[in-house]
Amino acid sequence: MQYCSSCGAGVAFRIPQGDDRERHVCENCGIIHYINPRIVAGTLPVWDERILLCRRAIEPRYGFWTLPAGFMENGETTTEAALRETLEEAEARVELDGLYAVLNVPHIDQVHMYFRARLIDGQFGAGPESLETALFRESEIPWEELAFPTVTETLNRYFSDRNATGEHFEVMVDDIRRRLGNNR
Amino acid sequence: MQYCSSCGAGVAFRIPQGDDRERHVCENCGIIHYINPRIVAGTLPVWDERILLCRRAIEPRYGFWTLPAGFMENGETTTEAALRETLEEAEARVELDGLYAVLNVPHIDQVHMYFRARLIDGQFGAGPESLETALFRESEIPWEELAFPTVTETLNRYFSDRNATGEHFEVMVDDIRRRLGNNR
Repeated sequence: MQYCSSCGAGVAFRIPQGDDRERHVCENCGIIHYINPRIVAGTLPVWDERILLCRRAIEPRYGFWTLPAGFMENGETTTEAALRETLEEAEARVELDGLYAVLNVPHIDQVHMYFRARLIDGQFGAGPESLETALFRESEIPWEELAFPTVTETLNRYFSDRNATGEHFEVMVDDIRRRLGNNR
Repeated sequence: MQYCSSCGAGVAFRIPQGDDRERHVCENCGIIHYINPRIVAGTLPVWDERILLCRRAIEPRYGFWTLPAGFMENGETTTEAALRETLEEAEARVELDGLYAVLNVPHIDQVHMYFRARLIDGQFGAGPESLETALFRESEIPWEELAFPTVTETLNRYFSDRNATGEHFEVMVDDIRRRLGNNR
């Protein structure tokens, strides 16, 4: 941020009075521009014990596999965002079974929230942001070609829970920290 | 948003190519400025069956009672944000017992996340954003003087769960919609 989005003057990067961290402050109109983490909402769609994954047609991680997910928009809820992204990326209609994973990714200022979901009619396709979509059994998951650590974490936990408890899934809250060689 | 925060030129409000909703777009440098919902993180701090509430020293809802909570900052996790806000607003150190409420508030583009928590040493105070803080039994909660619908919803659900199930608390995901006479 170089300029004030409200008045167009140059902004300073300093600690405002009464605050404890640096913000973009407009010395002309006085506005403080706060920048906050973003939510990525998505689903873990299941059909006949298989999981629906999307192969990305966009950067970052073009060609890698992901759960359908994307940035939550203003005016919608987390569940609406998760359903919309599933429809857009995988052309799949799902019924949500509940929040499953809340994964903080603080080094990129994101929180990823995945809901467990069931395909309603077994139909799916590839939206404009996907090269292809497909159903995978646990033994078929392309672990080395998954797009993001939160996808790996969510799938790992899902199979672990399913194998250990049958169909009892508790909400997981965890952090994904920066790792060497980690693309995100 | 009137001006591009990157180059200072005026911005247009239109649907970018390949998108499906209006964004602030800079016709000079080409940047699309996305605006996304913000997370409010906080705790439901318990001590000896009583709940710690803070009376707000700031707007909105000056003088009303709230659970300690505030906007999550870049670079932190939801749990770190909840702990920080509890320390800042109530001068209380707590141990988290798990995520409890995820409440979407789409008409103000927020998601409120509350964690159940226990005061570590029973100590608390009033930070700069609080007029006072106090512990309340269920029968003492100032229901008519609560600051925000998400606080009311979280407390209601907490007492309902506690009375019905003892100490078993499942994560609640729900939406708070705009209501007539609702201050938020």
